[in-house]
Amino acid sequence: MTASKHQPANSTVGTQGSPRHSIGAYLIERLLALGVNDIFGIPGDFILGFYGLLEASRIRIIGTCNELNAGYAADAYARMNGVGAVCVTYNVGGLSLVNAVAGAYAEKSPLIVISGAPGMAERLGNPLLHHRVGAFSTQRDVFEKVTVAAVVLDDPLTAFREIDRCLDLAITHKRPVYIEIPRDRLDARGTHPHIRSVHHPVSDPRALDEALQEAIKLVATARQPVILAGLEVHRCGMRDVMTAFAEKHQIPICSTILSKSVISEKHPLYLGVYEGAMGRDNVREYVENSDCLILLGAFMTDMELGIYTAKLNPERWIFASLDALRIHHHHFHDVLFADFMAGLAAATFDTTTRTIPPMSAPSPQRYQPDPGARMTSRRLFQRINELLDPNMVVVCDVGDALFGASDLVTYHETQFLGPAYYTSMGFAVPAAVAVQVAKRELRPIVLVGDGAFQMTGQELSTAAKLGFNPIVIVLNNRGYTTERFLLEGAFNDIHEWHYHRLPALLGTGLGFDVVTEGDLENALTAALANTDSFSILNVHLDQADISPALARLTSGLKERV
Amino acid sequence: MTASKHQPANSTVGTQGSPRHSIGAYLIERLLALGVNDIFGIPGDFILGFYGLLEASRIRIIGTCNELNAGYAADAYARMNGVGAVCVTYNVGGLSLVNAVAGAYAEKSPLIVISGAPGMAERLGNPLLHHRVGAFSTQRDVFEKVTVAAVVLDDPLTAFREIDRCLDLAITHKRPVYIEIPRDRLDARGTHPHIRSVHHPVSDPRALDEALQEAIKLVATARQPVILAGLEVHRCGMRDVMTAFAEKHQIPICSTILSKSVISEKHPLYLGVYEGAMGRDNVREYVENSDCLILLGAFMTDMELGIYTAKLNPERWIFASLDALRIHHHHFHDVLFADFMAGLAAATFDTTTRTIPPMSAPSPQRYQPDPGARMTSRRLFQRINELLDPNMVVVCDVGDALFGASDLVTYHETQFLGPAYYTSMGFAVPAAVAVQVAKRELRPIVLVGDGAFQMTGQELSTAAKLGFNPIVIVLNNRGYTTERFLLEGAFNDIHEWHYHRLPALLGTGLGFDVVTEGDLENALTAALANTDSFSILNVHLDQADISPALARLTSGLKERV
Repeated sequence: MTASKHQPANSTVGTQGSPRHSIGAYLIERLLALGVNDIFGIPGDFILGFYGLLEASRIRIIGTCNELNAGYAADAYARMNGVGAVCVTYNVGGLSLVNAVAGAYAEKSPLIVISGAPGMAERLGNPLLHHRVGAFSTQRDVFEKVTVAAVVLDDPLTAFREIDRCLDLAITHKRPVYIEIPRDRLDARGTHPHIRSVHHPVSDPRALDEALQEAIKLVATARQPVILAGLEVHRCGMRDVMTAFAEKHQIPICSTILSKSVISEKHPLYLGVYEGAMGRDNVREYVENSDCLILLGAFMTDMELGIYTAKLNPERWIFASLDALRIHHHHFHDVLFADFMAGLAAATFDTTTRTIPPMSAPSPQRYQPDPGARMTSRRLFQRINELLDPNMVVVCDVGDALFGASDLVTYHETQFLGPAYYTSMGFAVPAAVAVQVAKRELRPIVLVGDGAFQMTGQELSTAAKLGFNPIVIVLNNRGYTTERFLLEGAFNDIHEWHYHRLPALLGTGLGFDVVTEGDLENALTAALANTDSFSILNVHLDQADISPALARLTSGLKERV
Repeated sequence: MTASKHQPANSTVGTQGSPRHSIGAYLIERLLALGVNDIFGIPGDFILGFYGLLEASRIRIIGTCNELNAGYAADAYARMNGVGAVCVTYNVGGLSLVNAVAGAYAEKSPLIVISGAPGMAERLGNPLLHHRVGAFSTQRDVFEKVTVAAVVLDDPLTAFREIDRCLDLAITHKRPVYIEIPRDRLDARGTHPHIRSVHHPVSDPRALDEALQEAIKLVATARQPVILAGLEVHRCGMRDVMTAFAEKHQIPICSTILSKSVISEKHPLYLGVYEGAMGRDNVREYVENSDCLILLGAFMTDMELGIYTAKLNPERWIFASLDALRIHHHHFHDVLFADFMAGLAAATFDTTTRTIPPMSAPSPQRYQPDPGARMTSRRLFQRINELLDPNMVVVCDVGDALFGASDLVTYHETQFLGPAYYTSMGFAVPAAVAVQVAKRELRPIVLVGDGAFQMTGQELSTAAKLGFNPIVIVLNNRGYTTERFLLEGAFNDIHEWHYHRLPALLGTGLGFDVVTEGDLENALTAALANTDSFSILNVHLDQADISPALARLTSGLKERV
């Protein structure tokens, strides 16, 4: 499947006859048109002019503590909002956020990176300007490796078209792009009013028709069809069309860990997260016993497959995504994901009566605190599950914060956020800030290991500045616990912070030291009542204590050996 | 001038007849032989095996809070120690430290980057392994842009030679290299005992002779020769030979801001930092009036030239560096920097009697605190200058911390550390940790703006863990002050932290809130007495208050307009 080329139709839209923009003004106009209402970053001399333009525009600038954090936040904003942007200075800024952009690439998040650069005039004579590394093109060359397009707007004759092309690619592929503006080109204008050209790919109608006929027949005659709804269902806005299809034919839906919350986890057709041995048994069995597995917009990554403990049989697959359409062992080319999904939803056929298994709560019995008992990972996740309300977003960092959280049940779609494939430590706190930048009414519940918190936790400064109220739960086990199971060594130990004392440093917020279940109750009661600032819980866990999900994975991996 | 190719001599040394190493063991042996006694980084699954080998070796592992900080620290360690190394996992680790490696490239610091990677066997079938971005080669492709060599040790037939080649290039060019180890190659052994091959470049003897004759004649007949000693004098170990030459012929020496402390700033021939209009007038006048300017190992960057306020006349230049040898407007090729320096030092000629101007202290009058007066930048730098003792290293971040510190007078060589050309914010705190990793007996005085501290200040955690005692002075002016002079806007404001309360979070250290000169005296007295943990001073400065050096630059730039 492709987002590309069969009989493409081109059209022009928009700004025909409009006055000649400057490059900077046009970029801002296009960002706003896409829905970029907020931009993350740190100013610096080569990008200052653009910051001046941004400040005069309707786009809100969100300053962060450093550029990597800005990148994580902008990525998370893109996941919440449909598109996001980060704006930094040359090299010292841009090269600091490469990892965040790589994560956005890996997990298909349309993140627009905007960087300043030395002016074209001041590059003459090849001077050693500050921030320079090797060639003037170094930063662009680096970003070519982690984006779907990387351009330098050095020529007003092509700059406007290049802006269009980059932004279209970000939206089409759901991946990052890089736009560099030499500072003396910011105010340059085109020679003519710019006419935006838009590329509309279309499906090969005969391939589409054949694929749909085959798929529909397979679904209609299946005993136990099940949808595995992947990340692209969210990224491409296919949630409603998929849900309509599932509801019409009473097909149960699972998510993957990367796509968790792709639909409401309270939906009657939702079974849970499928992730091989790491997932819950009833979900795993239902999926692995299906005679028609409808994989929609899913990545087949090791993380989503429970480190390859998944047992999925391609002979029973219908696999449709942005990049491919495959039924069993044959492939269809030039069929758009959107067209295939629309065709599925429009299909009518008789559905055999099916019994949908009841959605399985991870802990059917109600949590009753035992005030004197020391906190454990199992009990912590059980308690958080009861805490969740319809306005909360769970934001996870990697390690057991992520594994354990896969068992939580959120209320609405897009209420779970975590770097579940790229698994970059330090994503969660900056991402939690972005959640409230995008949707102020939501409240993030942040699950973060102590190692990850030390990486980027200072970004709570931005939550403090903006008056946000995330509840941050630090899983404090004094080191890299997930790694201790692979190879123990002193390198897994970290310096223990008094995480609950962070409010003293930041001048606001509430902190809680949590050793027992009683402490947890008191802390959560106070944190929930504290709607005006962040709350941080320092939850002390045993070094060897792991979540039920990680325990299942460990035992599943052992079975494989 | 070149580190390369005229009649090169090759030889083999070392491990002839030694047993066959594994790739991992050989790399560790070579690191130790180069003097890498400590390595910075964060473990992760693809590099865990190498961490196991490191822990069993004589190399000490220094865990940091995140990878970018590890990169800054390893760069600073390389500057102190002659070579440094950082060790991280695939992509999420490596791509987080690109900016630090770029800084090491820009400022010629021999930093060895070691990364884990998926095993070659597990790459078969092109699976979506976690941490992957695009191709498996993405990280290597990125590092090719910011290193002088980037290799993947995927083949035991070439791996040992590739290790030799990379490490030699780092040492020769004083620039970073990148070595990636697929995790299933760590224990692979060569088919034969490895014989290390070493490349010895030599100078073209006739070009060397001609260049030396011309240079010596110019120096011998000059009225007012002066040496501008650049960074490479330090990096290439040319300090002693340069000083011998200067002393023999009574030639005064200046440094640049990037090479500050290349020789002791108490040396009788040392004049001060030359940096165009930013520098002190007597230094600037002496250099700009020289009839024979001997530029040794200097970069001609905008920062070193005081944002191009320098007035240096190439008609009076002898310019010798790792990469070039130029006298006036002609160039010599294939002459090694070391050979040229040795030739200069060996030359004998009569020296006209010259009056060496006295080393000019920035503030000849003694600092007398006025206890009730609010702190100003000028007074702060004046006080710090009196504080310095022979065991202190000044570590600067960028902005006015760096500009202001150019006026300080350190005691011994390599007692000033700052990213004075690449000017990456956030360098100082991780670098200060590295100073004491490399030389425990030194005490860092860290000058850091509040914006820079928010970027990487959590790295004091590592100072806390290791019991180090840096004194960190946060110039708290509530934002990016240097930038306010270029373009004012709300984007220059940052959230104000209570920096002096960081000890509460980290569980050790002393913090001081400094508003007046009296507060500063009390804080410094207590900080100097606190030898067992870090001290942090939150020095409140007016938003518009700048150092004397930055004031000179601003007025110098105005004159140019």
